[in-house]
Amino acid sequence: MKRSAEDLLLGKILKGLPASDDLVLGPGDDCAVVRTNRGLQLLKTDCIAEGVHFLRAHDPARVGWKALCRPLSDIAAMGGEPGQALITIFSPPDLNNQYWVEFYKGIRKAARKFGVCIAGGEMSRQPNGIAVSVALTGTVPGGRFVGRSGGRPGDLLFVTGRLGGSFAGHHLDFSPRLQEGRWLAGTARASAMMDLSDGLGSDLPRLARASGCGFDADLASLPLREGSGTTGALTDGEDYELLFAVSPGQAAGLAAKWKSAFPRTPLTRIGMLNSAGLAPMGWPGGWDHFSVVSPPPARAACGWTAG
Amino acid sequence: MKRSAEDLLLGKILKGLPASDDLVLGPGDDCAVVRTNRGLQLLKTDCIAEGVHFLRAHDPARVGWKALCRPLSDIAAMGGEPGQALITIFSPPDLNNQYWVEFYKGIRKAARKFGVCIAGGEMSRQPNGIAVSVALTGTVPGGRFVGRSGGRPGDLLFVTGRLGGSFAGHHLDFSPRLQEGRWLAGTARASAMMDLSDGLGSDLPRLARASGCGFDADLASLPLREGSGTTGALTDGEDYELLFAVSPGQAAGLAAKWKSAFPRTPLTRIGMLNSAGLAPMGWPGGWDHFSVVSPPPARAACGWTAG
Repeated sequence: MKRSAEDLLLGKILKGLPASDDLVLGPGDDCAVVRTNRGLQLLKTDCIAEGVHFLRAHDPARVGWKALCRPLSDIAAMGGEPGQALITIFSPPDLNNQYWVEFYKGIRKAARKFGVCIAGGEMSRQPNGIAVSVALTGTVPGGRFVGRSGGRPGDLLFVTGRLGGSFAGHHLDFSPRLQEGRWLAGTARASAMMDLSDGLGSDLPRLARASGCGFDADLASLPLREGSGTTGALTDGEDYELLFAVSPGQAAGLAAKWKSAFPRTPLTRIGMLNSAGLAPMGWPGGWDHFSVVSPPPARAACGWTAG
Repeated sequence: MKRSAEDLLLGKILKGLPASDDLVLGPGDDCAVVRTNRGLQLLKTDCIAEGVHFLRAHDPARVGWKALCRPLSDIAAMGGEPGQALITIFSPPDLNNQYWVEFYKGIRKAARKFGVCIAGGEMSRQPNGIAVSVALTGTVPGGRFVGRSGGRPGDLLFVTGRLGGSFAGHHLDFSPRLQEGRWLAGTARASAMMDLSDGLGSDLPRLARASGCGFDADLASLPLREGSGTTGALTDGEDYELLFAVSPGQAAGLAAKWKSAFPRTPLTRIGMLNSAGLAPMGWPGGWDHFSVVSPPPARAACGWTAG
């Protein structure tokens, strides 16, 4: 499978980083996993940039909500529970300070709803544009986390919710699938899981590659968000839904148990991991921030994610 | 004492954040302190922005070194030891990917030297300018950390190293005072401590205010970096030296013990905390990023810190 320019650059950068005995899972998954005497700790950083993930005209409270919910979606994808957050803000001189007061209303709302403690932060000027990064700690109930690499040939692939068209509003208002992630890690014994931030088109190959597998997918089966077609479901990104694999044994009866636990959220079987190590012919990539070609401006202004 | 615009904005933003029983020390100190079964954990985020903390023309490896060493300086100021780091990168489309390969050489060098594990990171495009944030975990040996608030009237004030003129190169090449910080927290029983990032002019009032004290300072005694005058020592910022308070009892014999432990690093007594709650008449502020007046461009381009 072809790797994205982003994945290739990351591979170069991360080569030869000092190792540590405490590091159970390093760069390349949704979260890092670190061993402590208390159990396993999840560590995650994510970010948003003006003109890429949001526009100046967007309600700052919704932008704040998004800033915190993005890394929460990665905690969800490990089957984890969030702990403390650190908020780093880059603020341009043409921005009124009141923007940050409103922004923090969204941060507070998400922190209360999902049980996050805002432990600290940092503010800096930058000459142009707003940018925010959020670092999060988390824990994993029972010491069981789900990474991307545990999938096996024959495992069935599912996605939660609906995909595509997130730029109409979903990318600012989504709720991270924290309860669903814990349920999938615990009750459903998912073998591999990740959140969909760059679009199924690039995220599904990442999960398959991490698991040493190829995959088949039934594009006609994709659950579409209202107004989206199949291409949007593959390449729009910012779905913040969970993609996961389960063994055929665990998949039996999964739909009924899911419906009982989460009656309002669709669960869709979309394909299967295989041993071929290939993506299906003509599989489209999702959003790749670090390819040589720049994104068309219309996309860059519509809330496309960086991964 | 007058609060800076940055401190006033932070006060507004942080009001009413959800509390947590695990949070021993929240926003407002060098690091947050969180209780875990393993002991206390330090959490810190810091950042650098192009045109504020570094220029495009600077060697990217030195910029990477600085990006990691800035939050390490805050871990040092708590008397802590660093653990894992998360690196978040905002990269403009006009930047060659090779920049990040070089940048990570500096990150790796600092990580090896100071025993940091790079656990993960995130990369995003932003339309203009480079920005990087680094989040760090840390531990405190023996469960003893030193915040800003433990100073008492009569405690003597000291600084490590020399101050001022950091933009000639020090701001890119400094070494965080990790060993010194642990020694000051342990052997010297510092009552309050912080790192000097915005300049003594604004940082000393912060330590005094957090301790509920005023202060006297002998400006003639300030240890000056080569090429710097007293004003530079107060307002240049980016010294990454430690400012700390000790009781008169602990201060007796401190100079000799310090000289034996750190023979090549000056230690200078610069003043005393008092009960008046005031700064000395005419005390100059350091760098304030969030005042209404914009910084003169020459300063903004010379590596001035955001706090």
